[in-house]
Amino acid sequence: MPAVSEKGLKMPQSPIRKLVPFAEDAKKRGTKVYHLNIGQPDIKTPKIALEAVKNNDLNVLEYSRSEGSEVYREKIAAYYKKQSIYVNSEEIIVTTGGSEALLFTMGTIADTGDEIIIPEPFYANYNGFATAAGVNIVPVVSKIDDNFALPPISEFEKLITPKTKAILICNPGNPTGYLYSKEEILKLAEIVKKHDLFLIADEVYREFTYDGAEHYSIMQAEGLEEHAIIIDSVSKRYSMCGARIGCIVSKNKQVIDAALKFAQARLSPPTYAQIASEAALDTPQNYFDEVITEYVSRRNTLISELEKIDNVKVAKPKGAFYCIAELPIDDADDFAQWILEKFQLDNETVMVAPAAGFYSTPGIGKNQIRIAYVLKEEDLIKAVAVLKAALKEYTS
Amino acid sequence: MPAVSEKGLKMPQSPIRKLVPFAEDAKKRGTKVYHLNIGQPDIKTPKIALEAVKNNDLNVLEYSRSEGSEVYREKIAAYYKKQSIYVNSEEIIVTTGGSEALLFTMGTIADTGDEIIIPEPFYANYNGFATAAGVNIVPVVSKIDDNFALPPISEFEKLITPKTKAILICNPGNPTGYLYSKEEILKLAEIVKKHDLFLIADEVYREFTYDGAEHYSIMQAEGLEEHAIIIDSVSKRYSMCGARIGCIVSKNKQVIDAALKFAQARLSPPTYAQIASEAALDTPQNYFDEVITEYVSRRNTLISELEKIDNVKVAKPKGAFYCIAELPIDDADDFAQWILEKFQLDNETVMVAPAAGFYSTPGIGKNQIRIAYVLKEEDLIKAVAVLKAALKEYTS
Repeated sequence: MPAVSEKGLKMPQSPIRKLVPFAEDAKKRGTKVYHLNIGQPDIKTPKIALEAVKNNDLNVLEYSRSEGSEVYREKIAAYYKKQSIYVNSEEIIVTTGGSEALLFTMGTIADTGDEIIIPEPFYANYNGFATAAGVNIVPVVSKIDDNFALPPISEFEKLITPKTKAILICNPGNPTGYLYSKEEILKLAEIVKKHDLFLIADEVYREFTYDGAEHYSIMQAEGLEEHAIIIDSVSKRYSMCGARIGCIVSKNKQVIDAALKFAQARLSPPTYAQIASEAALDTPQNYFDEVITEYVSRRNTLISELEKIDNVKVAKPKGAFYCIAELPIDDADDFAQWILEKFQLDNETVMVAPAAGFYSTPGIGKNQIRIAYVLKEEDLIKAVAVLKAALKEYTS
Repeated sequence: MPAVSEKGLKMPQSPIRKLVPFAEDAKKRGTKVYHLNIGQPDIKTPKIALEAVKNNDLNVLEYSRSEGSEVYREKIAAYYKKQSIYVNSEEIIVTTGGSEALLFTMGTIADTGDEIIIPEPFYANYNGFATAAGVNIVPVVSKIDDNFALPPISEFEKLITPKTKAILICNPGNPTGYLYSKEEILKLAEIVKKHDLFLIADEVYREFTYDGAEHYSIMQAEGLEEHAIIIDSVSKRYSMCGARIGCIVSKNKQVIDAALKFAQARLSPPTYAQIASEAALDTPQNYFDEVITEYVSRRNTLISELEKIDNVKVAKPKGAFYCIAELPIDDADDFAQWILEKFQLDNETVMVAPAAGFYSTPGIGKNQIRIAYVLKEEDLIKAVAVLKAALKEYTS
């Protein structure tokens, strides 16, 4: 029997994949499962996007251009202008989700064995894209006690080798909810210029910032034109995760030229999803206002409920819709499975994502979980109540 | 300025990419351009697929399952059963087009520096996926004088090394239009079993077979369960190139397990396109009958028109909608550009794909072009007339 590749064996699994069968079993037993584990928002997709697809008049569902339709890219450029990011349509390549944007970017800037430095905990699928591209992730630990702020630049500096090609951040962060300040971005700008590296920012949660904090994009930093690469996506912005549309943005022409070749090989991004995504750009501001208000209120509820539990430490998120909580346990993998398998409160249980899968350094984050606050407040309250009761029983 | 990767520089461009600006210039001059260069059919997408999307009632455009929805995969399995391919839904992973199916498959079975043997000429984007995956393509030349039939198995045997992981065929072939016989498939089955390799078949043109010839799938060959991997796509079958839905099919559990991890990293295939693709499976048989009749008639017209030109050799295709023609010239790249740049007949010109880009061996196929017969017959006749007049002037 022919064997699969080392790469195929090494490809990491999602941190929650192992838990899925236990959640399914719980549901089969009639237990309600609150899903704090997923990044799938329950927020409605803007009507304008859904209607555009329903009203399409295509007779032949043709390929689009590999880089995305000209009209759509022009509209994306106009969207960025409103965010004080000044790019033109030639500096944008439409991709099949932020996922493909990341994969193309890794292939574009790094060869097999090259290194990308990423503050951890980080979005677990970065591991998958890196493995697929043959790239090594070099983690810098950020700490819950600092709210997951940018680690000292000296920590990055120590890790830079001739194989280092880029620093990658997620801002605001999944799974931390941390929003980098302008000062932090400028520090990163300095170090990438000094060492001639790329700075890649996954800014898919750009709009999700709270408490009046403003998002500062790497493309607002001066002198970073040749270094900055933005990874973007419509998935969370418009609650359109299933569209699978994102983009790569860079003013570095070599980057765009190389990424375009990856895009040409796979022909084109999905046509229907581009129709939806183009229309979504006309979503009225009050949609976002309502969504942000909802998330702030969910976050506040979640944090205050979590803070009521003894010995639980939580980093208050300033953006996105995740937070990391540290629990008085040794092994969140075991705990998360135990809740689903053995615990229920009034016939309800909860699924959380063990945070170890968001770290690259072995052994770190084993007592942490990631919580996505994508549920209604009343459900969040009940879910945390389950968590509290479960912790009490598990630790006793 | 940070440099892009070797891989990014090495990523091949589409064989026709260089010609695009010349075609655009011709159009700007008011010259009509017949596009014989592209694989985008003008055939209408089945109404049932378009209507399913128009009538969707989604409120939240959610992620689907990474492997594609259970219902859709069940229906795909039923489709295969009708093709005498016996698989269940667990043996299918839905992908974002055949492109992603190829990319995931290469990552699943080969590591950096591993080799895949492919009869050439082959679909040019195999080069792109191989470069992206770090895999080396080892070509076996198939010949226009043999109609691009399977090269002798001894030719494959000579090329097998410890790094060889698979043989990849496209059946029926793009760009050759060749349909492998059952005997040829069984010969390939023997050699992959003997050397413990995978046999990957890109069968996206499965339905496009002519003159009563029947498609024989690698998954119909006995004893090939652990070796066979089918690459499939809805793009050509239902004229839905812009959907971006395909799949990987294998009875080898390790292959499916590894490919699923690649699929999980990119979250899910596009949701709207899955709605269209699921509905497309109910396309009535008369749609295909009409399409096949149309293509046979186009092919016959194209071939008979080409055969009227002196010193043009053409391999009569038995499937798909491409053919390779050998012209009495030295450099089809130069010729194709010259036609667009300098030639017109009654203010019309033609764009063809130089075939060298479909070969991996340098210097082969330089006097060949690929013609896609995706135009109406009256346009095909005019396009070949332009080609004939252009050849006369170019060679004089």
